[in-house]
Amino acid sequence: MTEQFPVTDRSRVRRMHDRASHAWADVHAVLDAAPMCHVGYVIDGAPYVTPTLHWRQGNRVFWHGSSASRFLRQAEGQAVCLTVSLMDGYVLARSAYNHSVNYRSAMVFGRANKITDAQDSAAALREMVDSLFPGRWETLRPMTAQEAKATTVMWMDIAEASVKDRVGPPGDADEADVPVWAGVLPMRTTLGTPEPAPEMAAGVPLPAELAELVASGLLRPA
Amino acid sequence: MTEQFPVTDRSRVRRMHDRASHAWADVHAVLDAAPMCHVGYVIDGAPYVTPTLHWRQGNRVFWHGSSASRFLRQAEGQAVCLTVSLMDGYVLARSAYNHSVNYRSAMVFGRANKITDAQDSAAALREMVDSLFPGRWETLRPMTAQEAKATTVMWMDIAEASVKDRVGPPGDADEADVPVWAGVLPMRTTLGTPEPAPEMAAGVPLPAELAELVASGLLRPA
Ligand SMILES: Cc1cc2nc3c(=O)[nH]c(=O)nc-3n(C[C@H](O)[C@H](O)[C@H](O)COP(=O)(O)OP(=O)(O)OC[C@H]3O[C@@H](n4cnc5c(N)ncnc54)[C@H](O)[C@@H]3O)c2cc1C
Ligand SMILES: Cc1cc2nc3c(=O)[nH]c(=O)nc-3n(C[C@H](O)[C@H](O)[C@H](O)COP(=O)(O)OP(=O)(O)OC[C@H]3O[C@@H](n4cnc5c(N)ncnc54)[C@H](O)[C@@H]3O)c2cc1C
Ligand code: HEM
Ligand code: HEM
Repeated sequence: MTEQFPVTDRSRVRRMHDRASHAWADVHAVLDAAPMCHVGYVIDGAPYVTPTLHWRQGNRVFWHGSSASRFLRQAEGQAVCLTVSLMDGYVLARSAYNHSVNYRSAMVFGRANKITDAQDSAAALREMVDSLFPGRWETLRPMTAQEAKATTVMWMDIAEASVKDRVGPPGDADEADVPVWAGVLPMRTTLGTPEPAPEMAAGVPLPAELAELVASGLLRPA
Repeated sequence: MTEQFPVTDRSRVRRMHDRASHAWADVHAVLDAAPMCHVGYVIDGAPYVTPTLHWRQGNRVFWHGSSASRFLRQAEGQAVCLTVSLMDGYVLARSAYNHSVNYRSAMVFGRANKITDAQDSAAALREMVDSLFPGRWETLRPMTAQEAKATTVMWMDIAEASVKDRVGPPGDADEADVPVWAGVLPMRTTLGTPEPAPEMAAGVPLPAELAELVASGLLRPA
């Protein structure tokens, strides 16, 4: 049996459910493919969606920001929905109706918490940096007490989650006689040539891990 | 005076407010740069964030889906927050604290409505297709009555909105003596080589508008 999140009224995919999964591995794969998520939370009954960076360990997701941020303060103790979406291409069909997008997306639900222990917070920030840029934390000017105090790390255990995706050519091969171009315009997000900070001393090399990340075509190390 | 959205308690940017704007033109520019948004809405007090495609005319934003979609039905008549985010690069500094991301994002707030008139709905869907792929609607197999019925178009007049962005190298030039690589890893999303549908008759050419869109480096025509 695959390990999967419970399928609840909240997270059951209704439309195009053949494109859906609730398996841990599928949820993890989407979360790990993108650096950025959109966090939904409620203030006075109204919805807010804030973009932020996330990282993951097991079924726990993390994000960070200012200790004074309204976004982080409001989310604490509250139900949130954290969504990660990757767009892989435009799908062009013979009819307008059959146009689509190739994509991968995950919606994860849970209750947001704040890391309160200073050592746990520092360890989480180290994990944030090193999960994007392996080995980098060690090479940096150490974090100060003031910086640590100004920063809050949030975490959420995934209680419910779903993934949807679409891959492949348009689904209307049965209308191939319509004389219009059909197919996919693939879309990709990649890292380009590193741009050194202007004031950096000559001779400071680009670390191999960063060169590898750029060359990998991925947005996070695999 | 620039035309701008009111700065309210909801939309006033608190942190890094030097990176903020509420000008119509800045909000429009971010909405127009990306095909995809994340819509936040509330069901039974809990937040949901659904990715979807959006398009814009003036200060009105549109999105579409199944007439049976819970997402669309729930949003109708409700306050929503529609967020568009573009990531332009990783910013690597000498200290972990000064790491950042180059980005552009817009959060727009308003009340979601459903287009109820069939002709208005068809016109909006045509605008959706042609705003992404100029002139395409006219070349397609016409929309059927059943397809029109299955589809709902939502619209929202922007009541409040904010934009934030960050550009440029890391902000810690004063610590340039720390011997670690610092700078920007630029990130870009682009369209790649078009992939014709396998069953398409040989000799159906790629329309010039699609070739131009791919060549432009943009995700929507300017
Ligand atoms: C890049 C992109 C573009 C899209 N564009 C459109 C569009 O233009 N029109 C459109 O109708 N849909 C679009 N979608 C799909 C959209 O996100 C929803 O899946 C769909 O609108 C409604 O599905 P539903 O009615 O089953 O969801 P609902 O019934 O509203 O949701 C039920 C539950 O299903 C799960 N779920 C629903 N959608 C997703 C998802 N995308 N990822 C993970 N879990 C999900 C959640 O747990 C949710 O709580 C797009 C998705 C992506 C990633
Ligand atoms: C790709 C990306 C990655 C990011 N990563 C992080 C991160 O890792 N950590 C982090 O702290 N922040 C991150 N941000 C910024 C984040 O979105 C918020 O701006 C910030 O966390 C909180 O700002 P605030 O306290 O002023 O917002 P709040 O006080 O929570 O918001 C007040 C109002 O300001 C406006 N606003 C706030 N943020 C934005 C925004 N991004 N775009 C448009 N309007 C906005 C809205 O109207 C909002 O209602 C990222 C943004 C982007 C686009
Ligand atoms: C540029 C053109 C278009 C694009 C890129 C597009 C894209 C999409 C995407 C990505 C979805 C989500 C599918 C999923 O849940 O996996 C969707 C759903 C849908 N679209 Fe479109 N669309 C386009 C035009 C249209 C038009 C013109 C119509 C109507 C004539 C239409 C009707 C629908 C309907 C009814 C759904 C819901 C499908 C379902 O849940 O059963 N779309 N569209
Ligand atoms: C890979 C490493 C990191 C990246 C990419 C990163 C990225 C970001 C981004 C994009 C923001 C939002 C800035 C804005 O609102 O425009 C932010 C805010 C913030 N980050 Fe980080 N960060 C990283 C590591 C850290 C670390 C290690 C700390 C603490 C030591 C930290 C502390 C903060 C604080 C306090 C804010 C809020 C700033 C403010 O609103 O005043 N970050 N970060």
